[in-house]
Amino acid sequence: MKPVYLDYNATTPLAPEVVEEMLPYLKEHFGNPSSGHYYGQITQDAVVMARKRVAALLACSANEIIFTGGGTEANNLAIKGVAYALQKRGNHIITQITEHPAVLNVCRFLETQGFTVTYLPVDQYGMVNTDDVAEAISDKTILITIMHANNETGTLQPVKEIGGLARKNGVLFHTDAAQSVGKVKTHVSDMNADLLTIAAHKLYGPKGVGALYVRSGVDLLPTTHGAGHEGGLRPGTENVAGVVALGKSCLLALEEMDTRINHLTSLRNEFFALLQNYVPEVLLNGHPEKRLPNTLNVSFPGINAPQKLAEIPQIAASTGSACHHGEETMSPVLAAMNQPASRGLGAVRLSLGRETTREDIKLAAELLGKNFSNN
Amino acid sequence: MKPVYLDYNATTPLAPEVVEEMLPYLKEHFGNPSSGHYYGQITQDAVVMARKRVAALLACSANEIIFTGGGTEANNLAIKGVAYALQKRGNHIITQITEHPAVLNVCRFLETQGFTVTYLPVDQYGMVNTDDVAEAISDKTILITIMHANNETGTLQPVKEIGGLARKNGVLFHTDAAQSVGKVKTHVSDMNADLLTIAAHKLYGPKGVGALYVRSGVDLLPTTHGAGHEGGLRPGTENVAGVVALGKSCLLALEEMDTRINHLTSLRNEFFALLQNYVPEVLLNGHPEKRLPNTLNVSFPGINAPQKLAEIPQIAASTGSACHHGEETMSPVLAAMNQPASRGLGAVRLSLGRETTREDIKLAAELLGKNFSNN
Repeated sequence: MKPVYLDYNATTPLAPEVVEEMLPYLKEHFGNPSSGHYYGQITQDAVVMARKRVAALLACSANEIIFTGGGTEANNLAIKGVAYALQKRGNHIITQITEHPAVLNVCRFLETQGFTVTYLPVDQYGMVNTDDVAEAISDKTILITIMHANNETGTLQPVKEIGGLARKNGVLFHTDAAQSVGKVKTHVSDMNADLLTIAAHKLYGPKGVGALYVRSGVDLLPTTHGAGHEGGLRPGTENVAGVVALGKSCLLALEEMDTRINHLTSLRNEFFALLQNYVPEVLLNGHPEKRLPNTLNVSFPGINAPQKLAEIPQIAASTGSACHHGEETMSPVLAAMNQPASRGLGAVRLSLGRETTREDIKLAAELLGKNFSNN
Repeated sequence: MKPVYLDYNATTPLAPEVVEEMLPYLKEHFGNPSSGHYYGQITQDAVVMARKRVAALLACSANEIIFTGGGTEANNLAIKGVAYALQKRGNHIITQITEHPAVLNVCRFLETQGFTVTYLPVDQYGMVNTDDVAEAISDKTILITIMHANNETGTLQPVKEIGGLARKNGVLFHTDAAQSVGKVKTHVSDMNADLLTIAAHKLYGPKGVGALYVRSGVDLLPTTHGAGHEGGLRPGTENVAGVVALGKSCLLALEEMDTRINHLTSLRNEFFALLQNYVPEVLLNGHPEKRLPNTLNVSFPGINAPQKLAEIPQIAASTGSACHHGEETMSPVLAAMNQPASRGLGAVRLSLGRETTREDIKLAAELLGKNFSNN
């Protein structure tokens, strides 16, 4: 029997409907969308349709969607693209410390290029304080980049308020929504977002394709140079099959949103209740309510979670901890939430998905209960 | 009946063997290669295998292959990566005028960043003179980037000699081999290449994946920032299915190289002979011998090729000409070869591939013969 997959925040299996939709573009429909003939027209049409589908999920216009090679590239394009486009107006960027490396390391790079970056702290739930955001804004600020949902804890940031603050101050707002698109509603207007990052493989699409929403009128410079694809913002022959797949993933997400939220919230809460039965001292990491429906990050205090998890091959999950020179260090996200090392090293991220069943969580809870108890 | 596809230099259909190889990675093998569990191990192993296969085709080490989102990204990483890494040593780059926009526009961008670029001319066959390269090298030169084969004419540049000159002068040599990999032998040592670009969709793989060969020891800075994938040079969750596909494409190319060269050279020469029968004034563009086996770029002097080709939907080919404000301008590649406009506007690129048959070229020659004659 294969292990129970509880690592949907790392990546998701492709939905069978998505594979089916992309297959013709790996077989008979192979043309280059830039070609003026029959074969090119078919794939050009497919890209047009996919762009509409992505836009529908975000409630934006199709011409505001730029396809990229993934979430990391979308974050790079958003943050560097704005920074270089607006550097004459200002050189200050605001972010926060539990961002993904694909945001943090872009910011650190920009610090070597004459930009200054404010890394805001988070509270015990991993949440940014909007007052901190307001205070950080100066007349040099050009961009605020704060994620929608954290990949480890699922904590949702107050993006609507942050985006509102940004807009009021004439500052652009980018949100890395790689973890939230397809899991919760992500209308760009609800978030006051000017730029928003998507990664297909987090919502039942393939790896190697993503998108950046760029609000019409936002000033952006390309970070990759070449031919004129994607409105001059992202050169390179379109990953047609990948783009079609992302489009279908977004269509599915739109259709299944309520079902997914109900299914996952219910399973996740039951999962936590089961764990509490087995291990009463288990702790929840992340915000108790403002959190992705599928994410359950729990700590078993005093337990070495990476070591224990490796001893239960029946469960595929992650810990967020890292091993450097044979010594485990806790997840930087939990450290940023001011959690003690005993709690951080005892953390396990259990992330559920479309295919997770009640049987899966019962089995996983039992296995974790038996192995992660100090008794 | 579908049009005869004679646009393999624009993109190739995926080889059925490639699709078959990648399918399991769009279905059951969906893990993130960075995950430490069962699902991650399977895809990590697949990436390792693919890297070995790409390396085998180039006759290099697996650890010298960096997977990217395509040829354009590989060119950006190579050229900017070297430029920024070595800018303290020098700021001069040498290239030539018939490069792909994914090289030319990177160079033009770098000119805005304090670098100076020499754009060498080409002769009537589109070939660079190695003496020009030697003369252009100064003590400020850090990189020479010259393509292996031209996408429009198939002309092969004297990369071995250019790479040798580079090495002798302590300058790095990058070659965009997107058009040649899989069509002719591309051993990196034969080309004296330090960096070499591959695009999967030009050799029967999918769009949206490519690779950069980086010779061990070459100093390169990443152009995209994020997590530590691909030896810190290209962050983002690996496009596992795409990478597996590229690996299989390279394996096929290695196995079929001689067959492909013989098949395509023979068909291409027959094609040209047929065209000469129909239209005696037809001219060959590009080098008569030092040329990709699959590429036949011909001019029908005095004919408006874009217009005529649009009138023959049974043939899928390209012209290289562009239409600006309703007026056709000849291909910049042919213009660089000092061809008159009457010849440039009469050019058609016929590029053949693995599936091209004798019947295809007979039909195409007949259709072109009837429609592209001034008589």
